[in-house]
Amino acid sequence: MNMMEAKESRARHWLSYRSELKVLDCTLRDGGLMNDHSFDDDIVQAIYQANVAAGVDYMEMGYKADKKVFAPTDFGPWKFCDEDDVRQVVGDNDTELKLSVMADAGRTDYHHDILPAEQSVFDMVRVATYIHQVPAAMDIAQDALDKGYEVTLNLMAVSTIQEWELDEALDIFAESGAQAIYLSDSFGTFYAEQVEYLMRKYLRLAVPRGKVVGMHAHNNQQLAFANTIEAIIQGANMLDGSMAGLGRGAGNCPLELLLGFLHNPRYHLRPVLKCIQDYIEPLRQELRWGFDIPYMITGVLNQHPRPAMQFNASEDRGNYVKFLDMMVEEE
Amino acid sequence: MNMMEAKESRARHWLSYRSELKVLDCTLRDGGLMNDHSFDDDIVQAIYQANVAAGVDYMEMGYKADKKVFAPTDFGPWKFCDEDDVRQVVGDNDTELKLSVMADAGRTDYHHDILPAEQSVFDMVRVATYIHQVPAAMDIAQDALDKGYEVTLNLMAVSTIQEWELDEALDIFAESGAQAIYLSDSFGTFYAEQVEYLMRKYLRLAVPRGKVVGMHAHNNQQLAFANTIEAIIQGANMLDGSMAGLGRGAGNCPLELLLGFLHNPRYHLRPVLKCIQDYIEPLRQELRWGFDIPYMITGVLNQHPRPAMQFNASEDRGNYVKFLDMMVEEE
Repeated sequence: MNMMEAKESRARHWLSYRSELKVLDCTLRDGGLMNDHSFDDDIVQAIYQANVAAGVDYMEMGYKADKKVFAPTDFGPWKFCDEDDVRQVVGDNDTELKLSVMADAGRTDYHHDILPAEQSVFDMVRVATYIHQVPAAMDIAQDALDKGYEVTLNLMAVSTIQEWELDEALDIFAESGAQAIYLSDSFGTFYAEQVEYLMRKYLRLAVPRGKVVGMHAHNNQQLAFANTIEAIIQGANMLDGSMAGLGRGAGNCPLELLLGFLHNPRYHLRPVLKCIQDYIEPLRQELRWGFDIPYMITGVLNQHPRPAMQFNASEDRGNYVKFLDMMVEEE
Repeated sequence: MNMMEAKESRARHWLSYRSELKVLDCTLRDGGLMNDHSFDDDIVQAIYQANVAAGVDYMEMGYKADKKVFAPTDFGPWKFCDEDDVRQVVGDNDTELKLSVMADAGRTDYHHDILPAEQSVFDMVRVATYIHQVPAAMDIAQDALDKGYEVTLNLMAVSTIQEWELDEALDIFAESGAQAIYLSDSFGTFYAEQVEYLMRKYLRLAVPRGKVVGMHAHNNQQLAFANTIEAIIQGANMLDGSMAGLGRGAGNCPLELLLGFLHNPRYHLRPVLKCIQDYIEPLRQELRWGFDIPYMITGVLNQHPRPAMQFNASEDRGNYVKFLDMMVEEE
């Protein structure tokens, strides 16, 4: 597709919609990074029901973390997503909403903890990997494919990867059996132009193999929604959002903004707003996610949000100049 | 400039900067819409000093409102921007920061209240007008030009104007002596593609007449910064931002995000962060500006934020579903 065609299709699709576009709600999984995955069942139930009513395509419940690496006493159930815990909320999930779980390369005992798909309440396994773990990730992906799951490959911290390494990883992903490859802006550092550049690269490799490309954005610079729109324009067909943006640090693309933008009549905004006002906003004081200047600073500096999260949990919260000076000094 | 050139110039300018690009801080003027322009002098002083230290090009102090229309007892001094009140804070403004004031068409006694520029502390008059007031606006603009000011024309609520009327207004603007024409997303309703379309239209008319095009964005959909970047990419060279986004309703493009994005070494982020933490954030509880779902809803519906502001000032604040139902019923 050349530029002129891309521009034309923008205008042509303005009042239409792409039926192949899927939305994934990652409220519980990414939000779990703010409370060690210890959501009460009534909140999980409310998010689940809202997603069903809103026509959202996928809901991610949490991680399949290895209990030999992470002590179950230190975390809530959504760090491990045991089948019994999930079924306690969703039953057998006799709905159109598909359920996904994230498996971190190197931190999942997948042979043991991921059941064959026909015995599981999950439909999809998303494999998250840093660049140096790609071989481990491919093994998890193959295992999940063999067990009958849909599989996505989510390469994290792309903004820190040398381009020749990224190209190699994408080649490996493209040769795999995974249904989707995700562009993840883990550090919330990308502007739309960088999303455009990378998305074209991902699509060039993925589309000829019949794979979908997804977008997972963070809101460090108040660009998560804008970057998700840019990804849609380029051709991404799997989009992560979270209710009220609940997610690590500055949070994710707000699901309500995304549903307000998409024109597909299958999506409904109202159940999501209801869930936000009744269940998500009441968590804000305790979980304290969302845009804040320290997250902007780590985003601009292309760094992990960890120091900003630590700073915001300290008594120095709000002292933006102190955080800036600290981060610039460390450069 | 065709598409390919536009794309190429994006990449070419990534690590460079456009020296002709100017930044205007509208914290005080747009923020004044949240407190009837009643900022204390120490806050105004702090914003002024921060802008000087940050290398910001223009600072807008408020409005030149007609005291026969608005009772001075009902508003703070920044509704009227009397020369004496401004000089009490900035002296003769012996700095590189230029000062601007906004004149609303139909609500300014400009013949009387706007002094000749050589007697004034102001450098620029920005004329704000709705489409039906264009003749009145042109008269204010000509008066200000005759008095020796820089002048900009800011057409409000563009998202509600029929295209043939917009084209006519822009033709009139282009023939005027004003130095700049602003694209204002008053309702915070635009996505980047609409900014692209309109910005190209504005530039097509303005640039051949040697005029600059500016961008004034609102954050109803968390797109104020993203849309300002899109405007820059298209060729806008005058950009409005406000500290911590302080402005009406969902607020404006955050100045700190804008300065973090621009590569011009004349701009400095630190003084702005210092001012935000010491003077702007302490106002948040009282003024309550910033992104909130009711503003998203008026933005998506292409409506003035007024009902969302009223709702958020009522005891129903936070009941998103009630606001949605109310607004959709009114459609």
